[in-house]
Amino acid sequence: MKMDIKKEIELIAAQAKAAAGKLAAAPTDLKNKALLAMADALVKEQKRILKENDKDMAAARKNGTSQAMLDRLLLTDARIDSMAVGLRQVAALPDPVGEVISGHQAPNGLRINKLRVPLGVIGIIYEARPNVTADAAGLCLKTGNAVILRGGSEAIRSNLAIAGVLANAAETAGLPKHSVQLLETTDRQAVDILLRLNDFIDVIIPRGGAGLIKKVVENSSVPVIETGVGVCHTFVDESANLAMASDIAFNAKVSRPAVCNAMETLLVHEKVAEDFLPGMLKRLQEAEVEIFGCGKTCSLYGEAKAATEEDWACEYADLKLAVKVVGSLPEALAHIERYGSRHSEAIVTENYSNSQQFLQKVDAAAVYVNASTRFTDGFEFGFGAEIGISTQKLHARGPMGLPELTSVKYVISGNGQIR
Amino acid sequence: MKMDIKKEIELIAAQAKAAAGKLAAAPTDLKNKALLAMADALVKEQKRILKENDKDMAAARKNGTSQAMLDRLLLTDARIDSMAVGLRQVAALPDPVGEVISGHQAPNGLRINKLRVPLGVIGIIYEARPNVTADAAGLCLKTGNAVILRGGSEAIRSNLAIAGVLANAAETAGLPKHSVQLLETTDRQAVDILLRLNDFIDVIIPRGGAGLIKKVVENSSVPVIETGVGVCHTFVDESANLAMASDIAFNAKVSRPAVCNAMETLLVHEKVAEDFLPGMLKRLQEAEVEIFGCGKTCSLYGEAKAATEEDWACEYADLKLAVKVVGSLPEALAHIERYGSRHSEAIVTENYSNSQQFLQKVDAAAVYVNASTRFTDGFEFGFGAEIGISTQKLHARGPMGLPELTSVKYVISGNGQIR
Repeated sequence: MKMDIKKEIELIAAQAKAAAGKLAAAPTDLKNKALLAMADALVKEQKRILKENDKDMAAARKNGTSQAMLDRLLLTDARIDSMAVGLRQVAALPDPVGEVISGHQAPNGLRINKLRVPLGVIGIIYEARPNVTADAAGLCLKTGNAVILRGGSEAIRSNLAIAGVLANAAETAGLPKHSVQLLETTDRQAVDILLRLNDFIDVIIPRGGAGLIKKVVENSSVPVIETGVGVCHTFVDESANLAMASDIAFNAKVSRPAVCNAMETLLVHEKVAEDFLPGMLKRLQEAEVEIFGCGKTCSLYGEAKAATEEDWACEYADLKLAVKVVGSLPEALAHIERYGSRHSEAIVTENYSNSQQFLQKVDAAAVYVNASTRFTDGFEFGFGAEIGISTQKLHARGPMGLPELTSVKYVISGNGQIR
Repeated sequence: MKMDIKKEIELIAAQAKAAAGKLAAAPTDLKNKALLAMADALVKEQKRILKENDKDMAAARKNGTSQAMLDRLLLTDARIDSMAVGLRQVAALPDPVGEVISGHQAPNGLRINKLRVPLGVIGIIYEARPNVTADAAGLCLKTGNAVILRGGSEAIRSNLAIAGVLANAAETAGLPKHSVQLLETTDRQAVDILLRLNDFIDVIIPRGGAGLIKKVVENSSVPVIETGVGVCHTFVDESANLAMASDIAFNAKVSRPAVCNAMETLLVHEKVAEDFLPGMLKRLQEAEVEIFGCGKTCSLYGEAKAATEEDWACEYADLKLAVKVVGSLPEALAHIERYGSRHSEAIVTENYSNSQQFLQKVDAAAVYVNASTRFTDGFEFGFGAEIGISTQKLHARGPMGLPELTSVKYVISGNGQIR
């Protein structure tokens, strides 16, 4: 371990902790003023940010980066404007900090109130998209948290430019220095160090692919909120309205295949497979979806390729779909239990008992009857913002809005009570 | 790594997960029936449990175990009765599972409800006191969770007897097999294995000393709720009612020194130190409290020993107290920030601004004005039960009752909505 990196990261974390102590007391007005100033600054510094992004793009092209990845990395006037709009939207949301969640007077006269307070210092480790830099900073600041950002090395110039603009605007507006910090180093050790700084960092939120999330979960001693891997299923029950099922499945797969709430596997009850699958799969294939099917699926639809064990567990995040015919609802439930990532699962059915059984038995953040899994999203759920979608059960589950970036504190007022 | 242990632990965890799937759907009536049956069984099997405890006690004495530890290990008729009473109390508490925490209809007609559900499988790693076996099992079952218990090796025979009685009673009452399991092995590797079983275990709760908790936090990839280390302070402000301060400090130190909400360091404003400290320290010393003071404290009270740096950070859990004279409220806050464990902190003051500043600035699970830190407790807070006191900020903070043993699930009912 190079000592200079360790010292550098520890210094950043200590600075973040100092900032967090002051940020926790920052009034809502001040935080909102800073968020609006940050939005204005992004627009004002658009050219400079785009110039840095050009350098990232050139380097990525030189490295033979895929088109999909290049698209994620790319910034445009419109994308920077949209970051600014996001910050203004966060400014307009209610501030959860300070809310009295519950409170009562104990028999001995003690007043015990449970208050919402910031988490403290939040570490965000993410990949590719430079817009996360602005989104995450905005959400963390609004909730009174200091944030340490660690983006992907491919976006380092863009992220440094954005974070620099944001940090400067926040400080000028009156927020503590070091409220927003981005790690300048792209050394991989930096993440390992960050993950062990329990004395300074209260929570780590990884945002990215399965590999990044696994690495963070396995190596962090700082509490982690696991986000985002989505192996989501849609089960078409024997009683389903098949036209509705087709629209739901098509939407779940095709509307935005790269996101975590997109469907990856379609399960179909054998009693409707023959009626449903050929038309459904043709519709999907016409939308350029590649089909990987079980034996029955392949026999019903000749253009399907044979699915392997890997297909059932795969988050394609692409125009690819695994398809399986199952004999019963319990078989569908068992498949979801085995291969699902506990993100979002849907049943299409007209049968009341089956709908209730599915809602009860599926262990996932969001469970749907007769709707597309694509709705698992902070904005769609009405939170006005989203920092990610938790697939763990501790602290937060499903889309995380502002309250999920807070903790609580018991405030107890007495007049001499002893026990 | 011995493969047989790894397989053994994985089997237990897989069994727990299977049980959890069924337990999540268990109606409250059934869970309560099982809890009452478990209480009855403990009383019925009292003699057998005491006999196993005798063996633990004999082995511990032979190993030269301290008197304090022997007292923790000891079971008596009264202590077993009190475990049974605890289980009956848990049966009488409201079941948090199934509660609709929030819900609304989205503009597109989707009904989005947020339901309280069990966490799933909870691992409890604890030391010494065999009563934790019954307490933890009862709280986990009431909230529909399967539990894997791992007690200390010194209490293995007592724990096996208690867990055997409980598991048998629960199953006979109709709960799934493997709802309650205790690790039979005392091999230290077992804990290391448990801490990495993310596919089966949803949360690990360590209960015990600082060493155990540190080990779990540093090595677990399963989400952890950190509990219990309490380096709690009482700050006597210059405006304090000194008689009240004396009673609060005495209570916080002496009423039960071994618990985590006991005071470990007394901070006194220099303007009242001369008036307050000699009498206070005499009173404490008469109750057999050993005093470790800063320079000023030692000069005001000759019988105090000089405190070292270690004293300020020490959770004595004993009749020992560190005492420091500070020049101001900010100095007291800085001391607490540096040495406190974020558990419980108190100020004694008659000054409004100082009380508000203390409540706002101290970063701890429970912050008090004019009351003893000893109130940080699930029963005192009115929860009716307690699984531990969280000193982290994620998921739960402060005393954890039944709701803290649950997660949430979004249940979404549609009629064909797509995005």
